[in-house]
Amino acid sequence: MTALTIWTYDWVPEGVWGFVRDLRLRWACEEAGLAYGVRTIPFDGRETNHLARQPFGQIPFLDDGNVKLFESGAGLLHLARKSETLMPVDPIGEAETLQWTLAALNSIEMVAVPWWFLTVSGAAENQLTGWLGMRLGQLETLLGEREWLAAGRFTVADLLMADVLRVEKLRAFGDRPATEAYVARITDRLAFRKAKADQTALFKAADAKRRA
Amino acid sequence: MTALTIWTYDWVPEGVWGFVRDLRLRWACEEAGLAYGVRTIPFDGRETNHLARQPFGQIPFLDDGNVKLFESGAGLLHLARKSETLMPVDPIGEAETLQWTLAALNSIEMVAVPWWFLTVSGAAENQLTGWLGMRLGQLETLLGEREWLAAGRFTVADLLMADVLRVEKLRAFGDRPATEAYVARITDRLAFRKAKADQTALFKAADAKRRA
Repeated sequence: MTALTIWTYDWVPEGVWGFVRDLRLRWACEEAGLAYGVRTIPFDGRETNHLARQPFGQIPFLDDGNVKLFESGAGLLHLARKSETLMPVDPIGEAETLQWTLAALNSIEMVAVPWWFLTVSGAAENQLTGWLGMRLGQLETLLGEREWLAAGRFTVADLLMADVLRVEKLRAFGDRPATEAYVARITDRLAFRKAKADQTALFKAADAKRRA
Repeated sequence: MTALTIWTYDWVPEGVWGFVRDLRLRWACEEAGLAYGVRTIPFDGRETNHLARQPFGQIPFLDDGNVKLFESGAGLLHLARKSETLMPVDPIGEAETLQWTLAALNSIEMVAVPWWFLTVSGAAENQLTGWLGMRLGQLETLLGEREWLAAGRFTVADLLMADVLRVEKLRAFGDRPATEAYVARITDRLAFRKAKADQTALFKAADAKRRA
């Protein structure tokens, strides 16, 4: 089997340790028992230093032999097809997993990330608050009725949705006990805790070296 | 072969005729020569009238026999696996198509739709303008160097990216000749024109009936 390589930055500010998106791919590999390595590109100059590989200057991207992908969602769907742990192989279970993976990206994160951006930008009034509240309320209703998003069991859709929802400002926005229990349950998984610890260790070591 | 059914609203305001997202699925079916029908659910009461089927009250959703999906991006990826016209079957071409489909949703639309929302909300200052300008600038550079996003030919990634970019306010935002040529070229395809005409005809007829 070809070894998987997950690419991330060589350093990030401490405030985002444990939240950089290579964590999504590390987590998926840990869940599925897929062997992987992690390599880095410079954070400094990221606007231009790897545009040939990632045209928006973002990370993560994934190497799987000759197959190379960017976009964390694309990487997750690529990994999910290697392991039933991440996505069922029956057509109905696969479709449910696909729809909820896309919903995490395009119905929740599409509102949540710009809302977060406006919030930290210090906008006097965050005009995305109503839209975000509606979406998170709809999700709260649903998570009050089921344990997992797709196929009646953990899938890559839960991994991604929990990663979108675990951001502190989102958890602090409104009282949504079913969502909070969902996030707590999923981020208590061993694979998540290992992925987060490994990412944090990499950035912490890089930070110490940078300051030395 | 099971017939595909695309679900949309039974009516929408005239301002969005030709831009409702069932068009993405119609367009994909037209490109691929897949037989499909269109069915509708009421626009009035959409906040609650189909939450069991689509937990955010949105359309489109897709029936493919026992397989049912919501999220236009999930529907497109599902359809793409039925036809090489939409997505190559070789692993490298498939990965490129997947990454650019996700990039359209999560790197471009994730900024463009909230930016559009703030613009039409009449915010004094749209704080997403810098972010959007950066993303569209990065895409302009890339589209100046290649005709298609993935695999050197038209794929579902171009269908989706062009659909994201063809919104009037985005086309009017900045001077991006390569992007404009890309959008013009892709929306000149017969399959797009048929899908747009069919959607418009449905909503126009519904509107006439509603006013009668």
